[in-house]
Amino acid sequence: MKTVVIVSHPNIASSSTQQFLREAAAEPNVTWHVPTDQPLDIPAEQALIRDADRLIFQFPLYWYSAPASLKAWEDTVLTRSFDYPSVGGALVGKELGLVISLGQPAAHYTAGAPEQFSLSQLTTPYQALAHRLGMTWLPSFVVDQFGYQTETEKMHLLVDYQRYLTQEPLTHFSDQVNWTVRKLKAVSETQPDADQQKIGLVIDQISQNAATLSDLQDTLALLKDGGED
Amino acid sequence: MKTVVIVSHPNIASSSTQQFLREAAAEPNVTWHVPTDQPLDIPAEQALIRDADRLIFQFPLYWYSAPASLKAWEDTVLTRSFDYPSVGGALVGKELGLVISLGQPAAHYTAGAPEQFSLSQLTTPYQALAHRLGMTWLPSFVVDQFGYQTETEKMHLLVDYQRYLTQEPLTHFSDQVNWTVRKLKAVSETQPDADQQKIGLVIDQISQNAATLSDLQDTLALLKDGGED
Repeated sequence: MKTVVIVSHPNIASSSTQQFLREAAAEPNVTWHVPTDQPLDIPAEQALIRDADRLIFQFPLYWYSAPASLKAWEDTVLTRSFDYPSVGGALVGKELGLVISLGQPAAHYTAGAPEQFSLSQLTTPYQALAHRLGMTWLPSFVVDQFGYQTETEKMHLLVDYQRYLTQEPLTHFSDQVNWTVRKLKAVSETQPDADQQKIGLVIDQISQNAATLSDLQDTLALLKDGGED
Repeated sequence: MKTVVIVSHPNIASSSTQQFLREAAAEPNVTWHVPTDQPLDIPAEQALIRDADRLIFQFPLYWYSAPASLKAWEDTVLTRSFDYPSVGGALVGKELGLVISLGQPAAHYTAGAPEQFSLSQLTTPYQALAHRLGMTWLPSFVVDQFGYQTETEKMHLLVDYQRYLTQEPLTHFSDQVNWTVRKLKAVSETQPDADQQKIGLVIDQISQNAATLSDLQDTLALLKDGGED
């Protein structure tokens, strides 16, 4: 699976969030792309996303939407002849997701909280875009108040972000387990023997936990079936 | 009441919709403003909207949002120090409305129809902006498929658009009647005597209809009160 991340930020070099995510995105089959050409090279941009299976728009939320540069990219690159399903639909069946960074706590984005509207409401224009182009909409990945995060929180963020870019499919817990085990095995291969053994123990534990969870789910399903008779 | 219309369109000169609306907007106390300076003169833009009572964003819907130029205006002109209620809030108490032109029929914008999402959903980012800045959100004014409209439909559109820009307050029918009578009187003053008499008859009829409607509403209210005893 190939992933393309279109990054929109007025000053990426000065954004600690974007620099952190850029390092985390340095994975096989992930392309980190900051459209900066003026004017944009439309055929090159179209070729890039035509080649992707998962397309990610990544941006800080400015006035409840992406910065103007992403809208300019949409207005220019997503031409009717390129991507409308009725005329060939270059993006049909691909996935579309958003990575949104927030200066406010994520909890502020709900009815009754300071921002009043949820991110699911505010991202409706992108959901409509996915619908129109025949793409599958992914749950958004939210990074809130990166500057206040502890080192441990940042490590969780790094792994979750890598999963968001590369785990396939994205939504099931069992796929998350498989992704984690594959990732640990890949890391293990680059380590000295002693560390490989330790990582092996972690993998065994994860696999064992996953098996236990699966057994518990089976038991739960049986109990439910009985209760519904 | 002063109204400022911020128009965002990549090619206004070639848009028959925008040319039509520009002529209709040539009213006292209405400023039609197309931000074109690069870079924007931020203090001048801020002074313009600080002076308005009703602020209108007017644009064709591109990918379920305004064209990039309006977002660039928002990102540049609406600075925290200028408009955040916590620090002075230059726009608190003003009204914010959208004039949206559509290439598709308006009926396509609802669940189950081709566009799937409603304009009330798609405009959430602007509603959140109004909420954040302490502004009053107006119902949006929608112009769909202007090119297919008959001359009569366009005349209705012209009057409704002028009302949207200048009627105060916007939402009640009685205010619509008052607006229409004032408008007819103003038009009358520029006409020959014979036409002034005819317009006078129309105004009398409208006023009489409004009085009849008011009586009927009173009667209805009495009947309802009786029924609820």
